[in-house]
Amino acid sequence: MTTRSMRRIRMAAVVAALAAGGAVAVAQSDSFDRLYAPIQPPKQIDLGKVELGKKLYFDPRLSKSGFISCNSCHNLSMGGTDNISTSIGDRWQKGPINAPTVLNSSLNLAQFWDGRAADLKEQAGGPIANPGEMAFTHTLAVDVLQSIPAYAREFKLIYGKDKIDIDMVTDAIAEFEKTLVTPNSRFDQYLLGNKQALTKDELAGYKLFNESGCVACHNGPNLGGNSFQKMGVVAPYKSASPGVEGRSAVTGKEIDRFTFKVPALRNVELTYPYFHDGAVWSLSEAVDVMGRLQLGKKFTPEENAQLVAFLKTLTGEQPVFQLPILPPSTEKTPRPRPFD
Amino acid sequence: MTTRSMRRIRMAAVVAALAAGGAVAVAQSDSFDRLYAPIQPPKQIDLGKVELGKKLYFDPRLSKSGFISCNSCHNLSMGGTDNISTSIGDRWQKGPINAPTVLNSSLNLAQFWDGRAADLKEQAGGPIANPGEMAFTHTLAVDVLQSIPAYAREFKLIYGKDKIDIDMVTDAIAEFEKTLVTPNSRFDQYLLGNKQALTKDELAGYKLFNESGCVACHNGPNLGGNSFQKMGVVAPYKSASPGVEGRSAVTGKEIDRFTFKVPALRNVELTYPYFHDGAVWSLSEAVDVMGRLQLGKKFTPEENAQLVAFLKTLTGEQPVFQLPILPPSTEKTPRPRPFD
Repeated sequence: MTTRSMRRIRMAAVVAALAAGGAVAVAQSDSFDRLYAPIQPPKQIDLGKVELGKKLYFDPRLSKSGFISCNSCHNLSMGGTDNISTSIGDRWQKGPINAPTVLNSSLNLAQFWDGRAADLKEQAGGPIANPGEMAFTHTLAVDVLQSIPAYAREFKLIYGKDKIDIDMVTDAIAEFEKTLVTPNSRFDQYLLGNKQALTKDELAGYKLFNESGCVACHNGPNLGGNSFQKMGVVAPYKSASPGVEGRSAVTGKEIDRFTFKVPALRNVELTYPYFHDGAVWSLSEAVDVMGRLQLGKKFTPEENAQLVAFLKTLTGEQPVFQLPILPPSTEKTPRPRPFD
Repeated sequence: MTTRSMRRIRMAAVVAALAAGGAVAVAQSDSFDRLYAPIQPPKQIDLGKVELGKKLYFDPRLSKSGFISCNSCHNLSMGGTDNISTSIGDRWQKGPINAPTVLNSSLNLAQFWDGRAADLKEQAGGPIANPGEMAFTHTLAVDVLQSIPAYAREFKLIYGKDKIDIDMVTDAIAEFEKTLVTPNSRFDQYLLGNKQALTKDELAGYKLFNESGCVACHNGPNLGGNSFQKMGVVAPYKSASPGVEGRSAVTGKEIDRFTFKVPALRNVELTYPYFHDGAVWSLSEAVDVMGRLQLGKKFTPEENAQLVAFLKTLTGEQPVFQLPILPPSTEKTPRPRPFD
């Protein structure tokens, strides 16, 4: 199969997938704009859960050590990532994979690089109990929260029960995460009708992005996150984490080997380093690798610069909120165990 | 020497020290209130430095790993501490000493438990370059900041120079830290004239605090932080960190062995675990140990509960501010090295 025919197939699949997902209308040949959509402010949000979830997101007592919170690796000061190749876990363990951004992650079709969690609520329980990450247990996490009167009252207010359970914990975290969207990027301003929002170079990059086939995988409101694709279509990717096999670990199917959820490109300027192994630090190099390995195309330096210029228009308004103040532990609270 | 005569000597020393320091007027025998003072809102603050310093305080790129920021161990969601016995440093090294709170630390006579830094500015440079903490160098920290255009511009705006230096970095962090005061605790409301602000038990605890001699060391606006005292006056303290010798490491004098800066009691409800080794987790136990080892006094359970009730009135309004958004690194930024 030639790369051109592969590209046609992928584009057809995208259009079908988008139509099925109802995210946007089917693309017209003269306009790619319809393959994208502006980031929307979150709707149907439960603000009580958001405030509780915000505290939990910042609370390192959900880890065995008392040192690692959700925000440690999905740092909201830093594009919802840790800007490290692969994350640091309990006792400084080196994680196998790059921490994806939490920003706009509610738009993704599934969570984690391999999509093993259906949604944010399911995802939130993973790191807490992962021995390589927060290294705690759901039972102990709930025990910690239950031992803190201010938390116990807040859970009771919101969920109406005296006893906290892990479903409430992950539900509140997920509700907070739904608010972590980044609207009003310059690309969104362009999509909403301000055609002056992009410079000439950025528009040239956008055109290239569409016509070279980047859009085949990076489309929809999040420019990605809505399909699984093989990393290394035209040529194999030499991963810095060769043991990470991607989607096949979930489906058990050989065809899903080295297939990953397509990373969303929103705020990509902030979410370095790139790819599931976090091996590439510059957008320019990431564009080059993607062109060669996924599209069989070597972009010229000028094209590369235009694509990078376009990608930087995807940086939206970062979520701004007050750092939460956490209620103190009590004598009944299980103590952190950072060194045993 | 009896414990009573020791107490008299210490109290006389305190009154002299307070008079010399000008913090409060000499105590009258009928009122201990004058030995304290309400927390004041910060004055003569440079807001440009505060906003820059806030970013730096939250920026893990001041560490070798890119994972540890000032806020990691002096967490402003958690009383300005990490609520761990001794802190976690680069590569999960176990620190030798408990992280003191940054809250109201501008009121202290010196910084660190052994007072080896004269002020907040001098303190701020310590952890960055400490191999057991952030494990970076001042040169590399400055290189990181200089490589990030938004930082370079902000430093130029505030300090008027094209080249960042470590003095500017620590100056800005210190200016932010000056804003981290916690006014309007119930004890402050009491000191300012609202005699109803404390309950009967809390008032009984306050009376005990004064008349038992706790005030001898824990006085002034921060209820401590304004003198160095020996840990274990009446009986030796069995430290969980016996190698930590305190002030003698700074002065070289045998008389300063196991002498430490008296920890401030403001927000003590939030700053557990207690003492320089972080070995004691409950306020009740801390009060018991202090009574026996420093005052030669065994408080009854009722007295202990009253003292703890009083100590909890020292929790003030926590600093509330927006989580800062950090400017992204560039291709020129030295990369974090968490695993090498």
